[in-house]
Amino acid sequence: MALIVQKYGGTSVKDVDRIRNVAQRIKQTVDEGHQVAVVVSARGGVTNELVTRARELAQTSDPKGQPDDREMDMLLACGEQETIALTAIALHALGIPAISRLGSQAGFKTDTAHTRARIREITGGDIPDQLAAGKVVIVAGFQGLSDDGEITTMGRGGSDLSAVALAAGLKADLCQIYTDVEGVYTADPRVVPNARKIEEISYEEMLELASMGSKVMQARAVEFAQKHDVVFEVRSSFNHNPGTIVKSEAPSMEDVVVSGVALDKNQAKIAVSDLPDKPGSAAKVFKALGDANVIVDMIVQNIGRGGAANLTFTVSKDDVHRAVEAVEKVLSEMGGGAANYVGDIAKVSIVGVGMRSHAGVAATLFSILADHEVNIQMISTSEIRISVAIDLADADKAAQAVHDGFELDQ
Amino acid sequence: MALIVQKYGGTSVKDVDRIRNVAQRIKQTVDEGHQVAVVVSARGGVTNELVTRARELAQTSDPKGQPDDREMDMLLACGEQETIALTAIALHALGIPAISRLGSQAGFKTDTAHTRARIREITGGDIPDQLAAGKVVIVAGFQGLSDDGEITTMGRGGSDLSAVALAAGLKADLCQIYTDVEGVYTADPRVVPNARKIEEISYEEMLELASMGSKVMQARAVEFAQKHDVVFEVRSSFNHNPGTIVKSEAPSMEDVVVSGVALDKNQAKIAVSDLPDKPGSAAKVFKALGDANVIVDMIVQNIGRGGAANLTFTVSKDDVHRAVEAVEKVLSEMGGGAANYVGDIAKVSIVGVGMRSHAGVAATLFSILADHEVNIQMISTSEIRISVAIDLADADKAAQAVHDGFELDQ
Repeated sequence: MALIVQKYGGTSVKDVDRIRNVAQRIKQTVDEGHQVAVVVSARGGVTNELVTRARELAQTSDPKGQPDDREMDMLLACGEQETIALTAIALHALGIPAISRLGSQAGFKTDTAHTRARIREITGGDIPDQLAAGKVVIVAGFQGLSDDGEITTMGRGGSDLSAVALAAGLKADLCQIYTDVEGVYTADPRVVPNARKIEEISYEEMLELASMGSKVMQARAVEFAQKHDVVFEVRSSFNHNPGTIVKSEAPSMEDVVVSGVALDKNQAKIAVSDLPDKPGSAAKVFKALGDANVIVDMIVQNIGRGGAANLTFTVSKDDVHRAVEAVEKVLSEMGGGAANYVGDIAKVSIVGVGMRSHAGVAATLFSILADHEVNIQMISTSEIRISVAIDLADADKAAQAVHDGFELDQ
Repeated sequence: MALIVQKYGGTSVKDVDRIRNVAQRIKQTVDEGHQVAVVVSARGGVTNELVTRARELAQTSDPKGQPDDREMDMLLACGEQETIALTAIALHALGIPAISRLGSQAGFKTDTAHTRARIREITGGDIPDQLAAGKVVIVAGFQGLSDDGEITTMGRGGSDLSAVALAAGLKADLCQIYTDVEGVYTADPRVVPNARKIEEISYEEMLELASMGSKVMQARAVEFAQKHDVVFEVRSSFNHNPGTIVKSEAPSMEDVVVSGVALDKNQAKIAVSDLPDKPGSAAKVFKALGDANVIVDMIVQNIGRGGAANLTFTVSKDDVHRAVEAVEKVLSEMGGGAANYVGDIAKVSIVGVGMRSHAGVAATLFSILADHEVNIQMISTSEIRISVAIDLADADKAAQAVHDGFELDQ
């Protein structure tokens, strides 16, 4: 008998039929003799509906009005509260004893940063007792209780974090993240049709792939799992195929040089020209971007005419306007230079812990791209990742070529 | 400066526009210099949607399956949680400081009877502090927290009860129940077009009128108000007309003999024939009905052929099937008699605390009905009410005639 934490996302509990399906899966796990604690998200679409209503009201008199963070948490926590109760009722109908638990009742203690709370501690409340009494416990993901006794939520992807944290808190044997994809793939199958599901992957690789836009899971949940050594499996709630196990790096993983290819088509390039050539100019630009909450990804700097520097960097498309505005403001304070949106780009990355011990990976990547006449505009690397910025029009071709070139379908 | 508790029902907070309207009303009260605590219901329709989903799931394998009461409370409490947050956000947009509070946070302590919890105590939580700090406090109606730390709900009309109880707990100066009618009328204006809004009414009269089918408010809320001497006003959230003040009986109220005419078209008549003429036979029948949760309204007993008794009684139409079943079962145990559904009837009642000190009211009622050729089938009375069961086809005509006969339009 194992203690298993299962997490079902919004698409898996979207309506009554899907909730029945989830209840059947839980029953199966119970029938196999396991103890099961379940974390569920809000029904797909519900959170967005609630956000829309809140925004409409907040903008009654000011088109830029934003709803209060505390009230948003009060509001959004309803979504999961609904699904835990419905899931428990669905289990009862199958003859499985079950009880729902709010984040507060499950002892998810967080800080007071509403809408983006961080977990301080998971006490688990009476969940161990309920499990011991033979009940399935259905826990509301995404939500917790602050020291002030207020409902908090953990931001997008918070339910994954809840599941991993609950697995850590309960010292579960296994944590299963059920979602609408079958696992982690060597590339996005919609772009690279011969992409292959990866059996096992390290936290580091998962993090690099996730942050590159293969949005299987939010980075925070993976980081938490890594920190607390929670082994978890990403798998589909729509079939019974095994998914991808995510765990600490194992020696065997290094045999595989490249685990996957990530493609991010949501990047834009901004050029700063004629930046005054004084110490700290670039630092001021990036500080201004940071203050404006813009995450800068790749950066290239080179000296232009007359000693003035040119800077080129990429940001998420959504941040372009904010980024240009922030940079122009700081440039005018420094007395020189101009910031311009150059265009959209794609970023192709290869990820693999094996890169640490294998030389020549970058060279192989570059030659594959050259063979396919893909021009590299920028390059960035981490210990286990190499990324290149390329023309958006070349994105799919490049991803397929790199996937083939590194033989990831095998 | 007064402390006012306002309650807005589901139709008043049905959508974003209505919530804006409610926020405007609250702002007005604040601008007049008052402290305001607000109780809101779930958005109109939301509770029914949630109940539908829960029932569908509960009936997955058994068409008679009912969802667990505790899980229903977890589920239904979401409805009010949504509206408190949205109402607070709407107030912020108007520049009014406001904070939402769950039933649990507002210190609504209840027993553990899920879906029909009774209030034990209202501590008010930090509401007095929030009010003193200049904030409007928006409290989730209908819900509380049991001694076990579980969310409970108080059943249909629970938000009215929450409002009255909160007014008692905070020692508010006034409690306003905003609803979709303008107050308590001398009769249902849809049936009696010249019905008049009553300015002031006693708790007892309100209770008799409410229980007679003029569904302005649930009896429990009125009873609570009476017990704790909470003066409240029933008024419309769609205009600014004054409503009806409900309070303890005042001497002046006795000048008015009849305050209103109530009409209940939802009654059915059941006849029990040939009941064995033994002591306790009738008692056994009514005990069986009580055990089956059937509320019996009017009763007539007369001795039939051969000493066997005939019983006739009225129940709510919804309970006919259950009532006949329960009586047939006990009759077969007693070895005799038959129970039959006779037909639907209407009940017309006149209500007024003045009846206590005025003779001849019943005679006047009977002669009005006789003048209009309405046949009286059954009669029941209380200290401040006289009710007659009549043919359903005569219902509207009778209500109008009684209203005119007692000159209630003046």
